[in-house]
Order: sequence, then structure tokens, then C-alpha cells
Amino acid sequence: MRVAILAHENFPGDAKTAVGILRYSDHDVVAVLDRSHAGERVTDYLPAVQDAPIVAGMADAPACDALLIGIAPIGGGFEASWRPDVRAAIQRGCDVIAGLHELLTDDEAFVELAAEHDVALHDVREPPDDLTVADGTAGEVDAHVVLTVGTDCSSGKMTGAFELRDAARERGLDAAVVPTGQTGIMIAGWGIAIDRVISDFAAGATERLVEQAADHDVLFVEGQGAIAHPAYSGVTAAILHGAQPDSLVFCHVAGHDRVGGYEAFEVPDHGWYASLYESMAEPVSGATVDAGLLNTHALDRSEATTALDAYGSKLGVPVTDPVRDDVGPVLDAVLPANFRARN
Amino acid sequence: MRVAILAHENFPGDAKTAVGILRYSDHDVVAVLDRSHAGERVTDYLPAVQDAPIVAGMADAPACDALLIGIAPIGGGFEASWRPDVRAAIQRGCDVIAGLHELLTDDEAFVELAAEHDVALHDVREPPDDLTVADGTAGEVDAHVVLTVGTDCSSGKMTGAFELRDAARERGLDAAVVPTGQTGIMIAGWGIAIDRVISDFAAGATERLVEQAADHDVLFVEGQGAIAHPAYSGVTAAILHGAQPDSLVFCHVAGHDRVGGYEAFEVPDHGWYASLYESMAEPVSGATVDAGLLNTHALDRSEATTALDAYGSKLGVPVTDPVRDDVGPVLDAVLPANFRARN
Repeated sequence: MRVAILAHENFPGDAKTAVGILRYSDHDVVAVLDRSHAGERVTDYLPAVQDAPIVAGMADAPACDALLIGIAPIGGGFEASWRPDVRAAIQRGCDVIAGLHELLTDDEAFVELAAEHDVALHDVREPPDDLTVADGTAGEVDAHVVLTVGTDCSSGKMTGAFELRDAARERGLDAAVVPTGQTGIMIAGWGIAIDRVISDFAAGATERLVEQAADHDVLFVEGQGAIAHPAYSGVTAAILHGAQPDSLVFCHVAGHDRVGGYEAFEVPDHGWYASLYESMAEPVSGATVDAGLLNTHALDRSEATTALDAYGSKLGVPVTDPVRDDVGPVLDAVLPANFRARN
Repeated sequence: MRVAILAHENFPGDAKTAVGILRYSDHDVVAVLDRSHAGERVTDYLPAVQDAPIVAGMADAPACDALLIGIAPIGGGFEASWRPDVRAAIQRGCDVIAGLHELLTDDEAFVELAAEHDVALHDVREPPDDLTVADGTAGEVDAHVVLTVGTDCSSGKMTGAFELRDAARERGLDAAVVPTGQTGIMIAGWGIAIDRVISDFAAGATERLVEQAADHDVLFVEGQGAIAHPAYSGVTAAILHGAQPDSLVFCHVAGHDRVGGYEAFEVPDHGWYASLYESMAEPVSGATVDAGLLNTHALDRSEATTALDAYGSKLGVPVTDPVRDDVGPVLDAVLPANFRARN
């Protein structure tokens, strides 16, 4: 699928969805829409992803099949300044795909225009309407299930899941990501945004995803939030118990010592926090924290090495920066013996 | 308000809502509808609650203002055999109040009949439509906040909250229950069914309830589920972190050693489980398990004493059976010094 990605005024730093699609999806990205960087290129900002021109709006974008909304403001609203590009995309016959709380399909003007031009509006954050409570059976799947967990939102759980998937595929394993949030869903083309599921059914929705993907060798379930987050721990707990993972990977951004947006709350000691995840898992699936991922993007090489050493000492398991360094040792730590690399 | 309570074929053992209303609400209960016990009386089954006749249907019920649906089958469905009573109630001018997943207001026949007879249909499980994420601020309220937590669903968290409220009121404190489930809402006349809130907003909904009730001296927040439950831990975690309690009361039903409906899962050791709740609370509100409640209904007096001793030893805090025995020592253990009874 050829796609354009809308990321006005936020590419790349605050456009997590856009960056994830560029890095991990199979889509062919024809353009990124960001009026503040028009005329530049994706690889001016991001190395090692597919390149594309950055343009001011749909009028300057090459032919494509869909427009993806690649930014998610706090609160999940749809910004009025995006309307002309969405209208232009629909008029050109493109589908529109968004992961916002505010739904495209609740916007009468978009719905009418889409019908007129015979294109689809996809709100990937909207969960299926036939969800129910968990049966407690996800642990019975044959696939080896690895869950990324972390110290906060935006701590590298989705990136970690996709990096581990790619490394597992390079070894010839049949690996898949189980997407639980809008960006992961946009990248992988399936999944459920667990944060939008009513809380009684959130574990059940996660269980359904794991069971749907059970025929792969290895599943990397994308975690959400953090287990002691003041606002989002319910989502995290539902995924931890609904997925019934075999193994946990603990994710953190170096230097991030307060909960984002909730600065009154400190991020707990990493060793203690990893143990809390294990204690929460123990009565249900017994998963342990077998590896750690650290985002060292803001550090120079020497600082990153020091930070990784300290992180590994705290956790007592193999750690790496999955974007900067080799994720192999972490993959070995979370896979069962028959899937490990031969040395 | 004069109410009739529908509890067909389930009174009193499987009619938790009906029993809660009889025991703790200010409503005047004119009849319980249970065709399997017609002709008997409430106090034939339950001591120390308001008495009322048990009747076969609305035709035999005295004049009243509302019919409450006092049973909640697994899955939350509305049973066809209840329809004649609901129709009769509406035709007599009674409001109908239910806490089921399946909504009265989605039933066109009921909606039409209610409009015709000018009565209201209340689905108390339906959350407000303006909820949002938690701000992380519930800990700032002046009220002393106590949360009941437990080893499973139906472990006495709601009963414990109301018993503690009543004991606190007897001491002259301005105490209130913060209802988080359909029965508590039906009893207290306000609240939000947190299990029906989308998981991103579940902590925020709890926070709103605590902040709405902040002008009381003491709040007893009704907990839900259990923090390591295979299906409902997300609801529990959202309430624990959304309410930011000062103190936790750990609830259990004596002899209940497997998770109800999920018998593959053992209830963890009580001392370990109480510590898990404290670890989960530590980074957010720092609440500790300061007391325990044990439902010893199925035991004789001597067995109950033994069970309470063992439970207290495991938890290391004062414990009691709140229905059978004096809840005073547990109340003292969870209140700040200035609210405690003088000895």
C-alpha cells in the first residue's frame, strides 16, 4: 500500500506514529506531510528508515492509496488545521486511517465526502463490538509469548517489540508483533487499541489477539503504560494478565526519572520495578523479566555505555539499546533454548 | 423511595445486589420478587436486615416507586423471564433501575412503554460520557481515603466498605462509601461502574468520584476484582491508582482458595498478596494494608475463630468478620489517630 503520512509541525520528534510506520511497516511511504519542514526529506532527520519527501500538504504528495494520520496530540483530538489535507485525500480517492480518540467516522462532513468518493475511513482505535471477559486461556497457546513492559508510557515498548520481531525474523523464526495501540495497529495492519476497550473486557481483548496469532513461533506483545502509572496502570495490568506471557522485557528511556505528564511521581528504582512486574505476573503466567531495553538516544556513545552497564546491573539480565545496538543478546535471553542463536 | 427488588430463583444466595440493598440502603423495600420463595419473608433467610414479603411477581407487590433488578447473571444479560415483571412495573408507574451490561434503554419495547407511562429507565452501569484520563490528584483531597481490596471478585469488598461506613457513622464521623460497581451505586444512589469505563479513563473516573466526595471526613472506596485476577486486574489497578488511598483493607472469603470461575488459578498466600497490593500502591499513594476482613459465613463459631486467627497472623494486622463480629478494631486500624475510638 502506498501511503502519505500527516505529521504537521511534529515530524519527527513528536510524531511517534509516523516514525513507527517509516521504520517498521511494509507500506510504501510516498510523502510525509509537515508544513514546517516542506522541501526536506525524511532521511534528513532519521537514518536507516525508508526515505520520502516532506511536503506541505496533499497537493504536493505523489499518488497514493491512503493518508495516515501520523500524530496523536494529548487528548487524542482531531485538529482543524488537518481538515484540508483529509478532504484533499478523500477527493483524490485515498482512504484515511487514524488512531485518534476523536473518530473520523463521527465527522459527518468526512463521512459524506468519503461516500461520495467511494473511499474508506478507518478508525483503528475503535475496538470490535463483540468483546467479552477473558477466559484466562492465553497461556495455553503454542507460540512463545514475550511482552514488553516499561517504566512509563513512551518508554520503548512498541519499538522494542518490532525490533525483536525483526531480529527474530532474521534468524528465520516466524515472529509477529501483537499490536495493542494505534501506532502498532497502523504498522502491522491488525490489533486492538486496548486503552479504548471497556475495562472489564481489556484482558479479554488481549487474550483474543494472542489466540488469533497463536500459529506463529514467537509473539512480541506490545505493552502499554506502566504497572504503577497513576493514570494508565489498568491498561498495563489487563495486558499483563490477558496475554499470559512467558517472558517480559523491561523498557526505559535513559535519564527519564519522573512519570511523563505526572511529574509529582518518581519512576521507581528499576530493579524494584522489574520485580513488581514479576510479582504481578507470578499468580497468572509466572513470567519473569529476562531482558531489558534502554533508549539511549539522548546520550553520546560513552554515556550510553555507562547507562547500559548501570541498567544491566540493576536488572541483572542482558540489556541493549535496540535501535542503536545489536538486539541479539536480548532476543536470546527471552527465547526458549530451541530458538536461540548458535554460538 | 419505596422499592421492589427482582431476584427470581436467586434470593438470597446469588442475589448480592438485593441483599446489599436490604442491608445498607435507605430505600424502603416493599417486596422481594422471587417466584421460588413466594409466601416467605426476607427475615426467614437474612437476620438483621429490613424485613419484606417475598412475592411471585409484581402483581403481588405493594405500592412502590421503583423496581430494582437485584440479580446479575454472569455475562450481565437480561433474562426473558423477567420481562412480565418489568412490564407490569412500568404499567403501574414505577421507574426501573438495573445494573446489567445489557441495557434497559437499548430495549425498544421497554423504552416505548416507559415513555407511554412517563416513568424512567435507569441503567446504573452506564458511565457518564464526559470521562477523561486521571490527573493523578486524588491523593490531595482532605478526606481520609480507605480502599477495600481482595483476593477475588465477591470477596467482601462492597460489604466491607458499607460496614465500615456504618461503624464510622456510629462514632459520629461523616463517612461515605464511594461506589464503583452496580450494587454499590444502587445502594448509595451515586457512583460509576468502573468496569464499564474504557480502560484509559478508568483511573480518571475513580479520581472523579473521590474528588466529588472529598468533603466527607472519611471515604470508603469500594474496590473491584483483584490485583492479580486473570480477567479483572485492570479494573482493580485503575481503582488503586485512581483513588490514591491512604489505607487498604484486605478482604477474603474463608476457604476460597481458587479464583472463582478461573479454577486453574490459585488464590496466592494472603500475606504475599497483601504485600503485592502494598508494592503496587507504593509509587503512587504509599497506602499499606492496615486491616483485614474475612467472610466466615460458611463456618461455625469455633472454625471462624480459628480462621480469623490464621488470617490475622498471615496479614499481621487487625482482622474481623464485618457481618458477624465487631468491625471496631478494623476501623481503628484504618483511621488516622484523631478519628480513632477512645479506649
